[in-house]
Amino acid sequence: MSAPSVSYSMTVRLEVPAGGTAVSQITTVVESSGGSVTGLDVTASGHERLRIDVTIAASSTAHADEIVAELRGIEGVALGKVSDRTFLMHLGGKIEMSSKHPIRNRDDLSMIYTPGVARVCTQIAEHPEDARRLTIKRNSVAVVTDGSAVLGLGNIGPQAALPVMEGKAALFKRFAGIDAWPICLDTQDTDAIVEIVRALAPGFAGINLEDISAPRCFEIEARLRELVDIPVFHDDQHGTAIVVLAALYNALRVVDKRIEDIRVVMSGAGAAGTAILKLLLEAGVKHAIVADIHGVVHDGREDLVDEAEGSPLRWIAENTNSEGVTGTLKDAVVGTDVFIGVSAPNVLGGEDVARMAEGAIVFALANPDPEIDPAVARETASVVATGRSDFPNQINNVLVFPGVFRGLLDAQSRSVNDEMMLAAARALADVVLEDELNPNYIIPSVFNEKVSGAVAGAVRDAARAAGEAAVTHAPAVTTAAAATAADGPVD
Amino acid sequence: MSAPSVSYSMTVRLEVPAGGTAVSQITTVVESSGGSVTGLDVTASGHERLRIDVTIAASSTAHADEIVAELRGIEGVALGKVSDRTFLMHLGGKIEMSSKHPIRNRDDLSMIYTPGVARVCTQIAEHPEDARRLTIKRNSVAVVTDGSAVLGLGNIGPQAALPVMEGKAALFKRFAGIDAWPICLDTQDTDAIVEIVRALAPGFAGINLEDISAPRCFEIEARLRELVDIPVFHDDQHGTAIVVLAALYNALRVVDKRIEDIRVVMSGAGAAGTAILKLLLEAGVKHAIVADIHGVVHDGREDLVDEAEGSPLRWIAENTNSEGVTGTLKDAVVGTDVFIGVSAPNVLGGEDVARMAEGAIVFALANPDPEIDPAVARETASVVATGRSDFPNQINNVLVFPGVFRGLLDAQSRSVNDEMMLAAARALADVVLEDELNPNYIIPSVFNEKVSGAVAGAVRDAARAAGEAAVTHAPAVTTAAAATAADGPVD
Repeated sequence: MSAPSVSYSMTVRLEVPAGGTAVSQITTVVESSGGSVTGLDVTASGHERLRIDVTIAASSTAHADEIVAELRGIEGVALGKVSDRTFLMHLGGKIEMSSKHPIRNRDDLSMIYTPGVARVCTQIAEHPEDARRLTIKRNSVAVVTDGSAVLGLGNIGPQAALPVMEGKAALFKRFAGIDAWPICLDTQDTDAIVEIVRALAPGFAGINLEDISAPRCFEIEARLRELVDIPVFHDDQHGTAIVVLAALYNALRVVDKRIEDIRVVMSGAGAAGTAILKLLLEAGVKHAIVADIHGVVHDGREDLVDEAEGSPLRWIAENTNSEGVTGTLKDAVVGTDVFIGVSAPNVLGGEDVARMAEGAIVFALANPDPEIDPAVARETASVVATGRSDFPNQINNVLVFPGVFRGLLDAQSRSVNDEMMLAAARALADVVLEDELNPNYIIPSVFNEKVSGAVAGAVRDAARAAGEAAVTHAPAVTTAAAATAADGPVD
Repeated sequence: MSAPSVSYSMTVRLEVPAGGTAVSQITTVVESSGGSVTGLDVTASGHERLRIDVTIAASSTAHADEIVAELRGIEGVALGKVSDRTFLMHLGGKIEMSSKHPIRNRDDLSMIYTPGVARVCTQIAEHPEDARRLTIKRNSVAVVTDGSAVLGLGNIGPQAALPVMEGKAALFKRFAGIDAWPICLDTQDTDAIVEIVRALAPGFAGINLEDISAPRCFEIEARLRELVDIPVFHDDQHGTAIVVLAALYNALRVVDKRIEDIRVVMSGAGAAGTAILKLLLEAGVKHAIVADIHGVVHDGREDLVDEAEGSPLRWIAENTNSEGVTGTLKDAVVGTDVFIGVSAPNVLGGEDVARMAEGAIVFALANPDPEIDPAVARETASVVATGRSDFPNQINNVLVFPGVFRGLLDAQSRSVNDEMMLAAARALADVVLEDELNPNYIIPSVFNEKVSGAVAGAVRDAARAAGEAAVTHAPAVTTAAAATAADGPVD
């Protein structure tokens, strides 16, 4: 059983006799059940009875239920309501809209709304480039999903996906000061999604696609990039690819290998796997092999489908495995330098990792159960990383997407390209200083305050260098004729 | 020339000689130019020169320019930058997204985002009715426009409309605590707009359509009401209709007439006019006549088009003017009790109002220039109202839409209907107490603190009575088995 976690934390209200051993039994019972008491408050007290709110971390929902059953068994204890701390944080939603200015009186109203707002509208109608200066567009990102591939939960639909999108929006603000709003679409039709997101673009400076299933996500993103003049970024693909590449850069520093020389075997040819592969090739990887559920992808396989038909398999066959390796994943990893899994639990064993090259690097990213138990992998591999927060080296998109969008927005970029993503990965890797680097610290914590700014700066510079940034317009905030008299812009 | 207004307010930076009369001339020059000095700050000072920021209210953009030119003419004055206060309030946009919870550490992250959020998603997937309880849906409204009929500016497009939609969102929060987000659509195709808004619905509890031109707005609203399970409200139509009806209720109290008895003539058969007419008929008006640019609408006119074809004219002909009046607007107003204009400036003269019945009521709502100068109308009419903030009795949608949506959201209403709108109008009228009522106070100020709550309460009750409110679900926030032991809900 995994360790008790705050994400399965509950607060249990108990009434117990004021005397006797009931109180002391509470902690004992919780701990003997494998839970952990993280808080204990007496919320009401009398001569005879105490009311106690106990906050308990459990390992799972079922485990929480077991602990509650054990508490109920204590002599003299009456069980009150049981509150789930995670659910309490989600009650009523996790984000809100705020006004930047008070509206205290008619003067405020006449500037924020009619009649004053009409002049601002007219200014933008006549000078569309002023939209970013005079509206929320500059700092706004739409977090768009159709609910078709939400976390590991699958196709749960747009409404059930909303808690994730709210959380994403909260992270955008926390780590990059960005105003993101969830857009949960009640359609899973590719054409419809493309048209909707295209039409939404005027009010936003970036589109973050989220939890849209493969292969539709490839086509949706590709078509939108042609249609809109703001960057479109599918975080499940590119956010993952960037953080994996950053971790790989540092893992290679640990084992002292060059990216051009390594042999990489990947497990998984879905959205994340394909994006990781493409970015690794851009970053200079020369020897890559991909395996999916049917084994190694090679150009002799009969299930290869063109990208135009929504599958990356033919593209993978044409751009990897130049030696024509066939067989299973386990065959392919023998002698390889790097294993990257974005697939399914327990596809490798310790014996497979032991057969990798010296200084092996294993990124087992399937969540919550990795491709191989990281503790087992670590027995022979030099560097091991997972997607889990309870092991060292967590590969977490939160390290990437806030800074990437901050950089894109600051540059007023019209798109996002491979150079910007490579720059983001390099900047993230470089947050780990030479004297901090070791096999258990190849990637910084999401709470490392340097991360977002470093990624943002690198992406901003790359966007400007690529000429993808909009021409900066900063006309003075002036009336028409007064502008001729003005000595400079206000903003 | 109208009075100086804060919506044409600017701050002018001047450098003037420290001695002499230049400083005192500044105020003199502004006032002799018809402006008004509302602030004067010395922002830097030396032995020789002063730097002064003067804030000045003007009457128009051209007037502001004139004042600046006059200031430049003062001996020894050097003009610095000129900042427009309204534009300054719009810089970078007027609203933002905020997180309700701090994200301080990994525990917070694991509850707000992964892995904890997965349990919340699963709960909603299994119990869709919990979406309103566990997400932002409950309190969120989409403010949707295609930019086709923005204020009086016409078809300026979605990006230039954004300042209005942001302002609307700010008002939703200020007056009703609602989280609204602007959705500015880069399409003016009716089918596309319907499909987009239908698809957006999962993340919102209400749709506020805004500044969409007639006749498309009729079809878009009607089709959406069939397609989505949340209320769809076109504020330009129904917000206006509700506030007009509320004002009419009180004007009738002033002149002591019954709504069933009055003869009403309307000028304008657009979106607002049609919605006002329909609500007046619902409220009991029996004698109504509508005129458009071609004169009185009657069933002999050859330009009548069916509603299905996007025009309300045939519907108007069939539901008004039972006596078959023909001719011009000026003909029709003779002897009538109430004139309501939502059309164009100066379509009536003082002599027309003088020919209305005794105790005439004139609502001249064209903006910024009314159908008749309100001062002229007031010479013979008993009650006059306009859409302007510089005359008594301002008919302003801000009195209505925040409270209407607050009531709809509180009731978790699936729709909005005439009964709810009538209830809103009655509640708004009743905010003006019997001993406050007079010809110059038939409608409360938008800053009257009773307004939003009164409207919200009436709409909420009407929604519940209509059975349009979703069944209230409030299961406890508990783990599955623990729920059986819980003594009640948490939220």
